[in-house]
Amino acid sequence: MTAQNAAEQQPTMMNGLSVQGVFDTVKAIEADGGLARFQFRARNRWIGGGVNRSTIRDFYGAGREDDSRMAAFEFTNGEPPVLLGDNEGANPVEFLLHALAGCVTTTFVLHATARGIAIQELSTELEGELDVRGLLGLDETISPGYERIRIRMYVRADCTDAELDELLSYTREHSPVCNTVCRPVPVMIERANA
Amino acid sequence: MTAQNAAEQQPTMMNGLSVQGVFDTVKAIEADGGLARFQFRARNRWIGGGVNRSTIRDFYGAGREDDSRMAAFEFTNGEPPVLLGDNEGANPVEFLLHALAGCVTTTFVLHATARGIAIQELSTELEGELDVRGLLGLDETISPGYERIRIRMYVRADCTDAELDELLSYTREHSPVCNTVCRPVPVMIERANA
Repeated sequence: MTAQNAAEQQPTMMNGLSVQGVFDTVKAIEADGGLARFQFRARNRWIGGGVNRSTIRDFYGAGREDDSRMAAFEFTNGEPPVLLGDNEGANPVEFLLHALAGCVTTTFVLHATARGIAIQELSTELEGELDVRGLLGLDETISPGYERIRIRMYVRADCTDAELDELLSYTREHSPVCNTVCRPVPVMIERANA
Repeated sequence: MTAQNAAEQQPTMMNGLSVQGVFDTVKAIEADGGLARFQFRARNRWIGGGVNRSTIRDFYGAGREDDSRMAAFEFTNGEPPVLLGDNEGANPVEFLLHALAGCVTTTFVLHATARGIAIQELSTELEGELDVRGLLGLDETISPGYERIRIRMYVRADCTDAELDELLSYTREHSPVCNTVCRPVPVMIERANA
């Protein structure tokens, strides 16, 4: 490949993503909407007190069961002493913030890449408020969940501030975890005998 | 302490929780509702592509800044190859399932303990469906988030099935992560220059 040919081509990688991969994925899903359907899964086992452990490995997506993971991911929930634990792990509401941070970041990076915007730096800080009287059942007028979550995003990229703001607004509308939190999503719990 | 005295007392620990700790916490919050207010936090940094890393350590709760954690917890979001990653970690929507599993479990264990129900075994399996056309912006009628999440709980405990079902229903109504998902929670994103 000559230098001239290379200069004429789209960059192979941008923001750590394959540009061709992004456009090929979009094209494949436009041709067959069924490829867009995913089912994600987790299995969790109680250890004791506020400690429990999830394993995450298989999922369905892009038309088939995924078999790309050689081993399961494992994550442990714990609680701090003030919530009757011993910091055996982050607690569930903290893991939710991690999920939200990651999803907003990845959604932002994905759509920046699709628009040809190169990101130099991106970090977020999240804060979520809740009142544990909801959890404890001490006041049924208090929702047990987060009242609100604030995300502050620091970003440097090769575009204008107006483009960044538009991209951020688009990210908020299209992030899966953000939309699982800001919209009501049905959670069904059923019991089976162990 | 004589055997007779011990038999007359409440058990010190049940389900891995301090029974006294549970009731002392409730009593303290009933006396001062301000102790129930918590703010949880996460900081996240983009690494590249669909990889980013959160650190979780400090939080505010029970009337003060917590300082019980000697080091921060770190968690890495990644993506599978079919979502343009290399399985660098579980992905954000999978971490959300881990958070939900943990919260439902801990809420169940907490209220079982408050009711004097001893749990022998507890595990959950979660499945969440979503359509990535929402994430990709290919169809604005499709919500990017989970459409629904199903939790199957296996539990063995020293109570009747009717008591288990009532406890499970109570758990669903009082779990913070479950109520962050099944109710609409505002997420505010603001941009700051890096």
